[in-house]
Amino acid sequence: MKPVAIILSGCGVYDGSEITEAAGLVIALSQAGLPYRFYAPDRDQMHVVDHAAGGEADESRHILSEAARIARGDIQPLAALEVADHSAVAFPGGFGAAKNLCNFASAGEQARLYDDVAAITRAALAARKPMLALCAAPLVLALAAHDAGLQATLTFGNPEEGAALAKAARAWGQHAVHAAVDEACVDAANLLVTVPAYMYGAASPAQVFAGCQAGVAALQRLLAD
Amino acid sequence: MKPVAIILSGCGVYDGSEITEAAGLVIALSQAGLPYRFYAPDRDQMHVVDHAAGGEADESRHILSEAARIARGDIQPLAALEVADHSAVAFPGGFGAAKNLCNFASAGEQARLYDDVAAITRAALAARKPMLALCAAPLVLALAAHDAGLQATLTFGNPEEGAALAKAARAWGQHAVHAAVDEACVDAANLLVTVPAYMYGAASPAQVFAGCQAGVAALQRLLAD
Repeated sequence: MKPVAIILSGCGVYDGSEITEAAGLVIALSQAGLPYRFYAPDRDQMHVVDHAAGGEADESRHILSEAARIARGDIQPLAALEVADHSAVAFPGGFGAAKNLCNFASAGEQARLYDDVAAITRAALAARKPMLALCAAPLVLALAAHDAGLQATLTFGNPEEGAALAKAARAWGQHAVHAAVDEACVDAANLLVTVPAYMYGAASPAQVFAGCQAGVAALQRLLAD
Repeated sequence: MKPVAIILSGCGVYDGSEITEAAGLVIALSQAGLPYRFYAPDRDQMHVVDHAAGGEADESRHILSEAARIARGDIQPLAALEVADHSAVAFPGGFGAAKNLCNFASAGEQARLYDDVAAITRAALAARKPMLALCAAPLVLALAAHDAGLQATLTFGNPEEGAALAKAARAWGQHAVHAAVDEACVDAANLLVTVPAYMYGAASPAQVFAGCQAGVAALQRLLAD
């Protein structure tokens, strides 16, 4: 079976990939018997946030090097990802999705996917490979669907906490729906699975992991069809 | 119920806490309904390893700030940990246990616990609070038992991959035993639970998580006694 490509955006919720989501996704894929490979953009992060103090730190970090902390060193640059060699593509959440995969954090509804990310999502949509995104990462799928002239259905959780992201997705012509914290939203036409996870700020790690398992189960059903 | 104190040593297997183990432990505690709080030493890491390139990086990082990436910012300095306010103490693995909690990585069998860590393990042993350690972190418990004049039973997994750590623990008067990847070693006399996790280098994330669940279940049994 071809591996799932997991695309990381760094290491840490405020400037990279959310760690419990990324690890929970990997555990859920492993439990389901689905192989995977890690990839990340080979460029600097938008910025670095001191996760203890809370402010921006005066340093720069490299997305691939930080993402490698989650991947235990076994990771490749995103430019090396051949979509045809993978069964699906998966994006854990975290602010890195809005800072390092697209520029939503600075550009809002004028956001664009970074070129290396757009190349992958374009190839995945064209090849009919399922894509899974957690938390804020459905932003990436919304932009990808917009760029491809598709109308996708995806979720940013509840209407309150996900309001700004859902509004942006609607501005891009996409359909944003409500989903429970541990529920997968499935767009069977476009082969997209989205899961709220920590879009619910008060979610427990057990709920986030249940969401990862629900997302992987939905991905498996799309792969079996 | 009092929370479990989770003591992190950074963020990333080669210079801090192993991420799948730390997240897996948190998910397992959350599934079991056990509350927890994060702590980490408020000092610099031994060094920084570029997890993509593999070598030492020419920079310094702060253990607490990096550990906060796993804790989503909700973390306190280790010096603020009042053992009496917690039900138990837990140490995920990763090289950080041997680099930032004690100095085994540089001193080998002459290793000592850092003072802030020794203060916690001494208080936990004195107060009969259970302690749980994953992967390489049983090193911390072996040193703590040695310092307290106790003989503990603990595991570093299989005899091959854990050989150097088991040899050190034996030099410190401790009893190191074999355990399967997803098995918890329980020292009921000293209230210590140890789990091999990624001491098995080829362990899958599902196996590591099963080990976290086994460790938490053993901890619950000790807490119920």
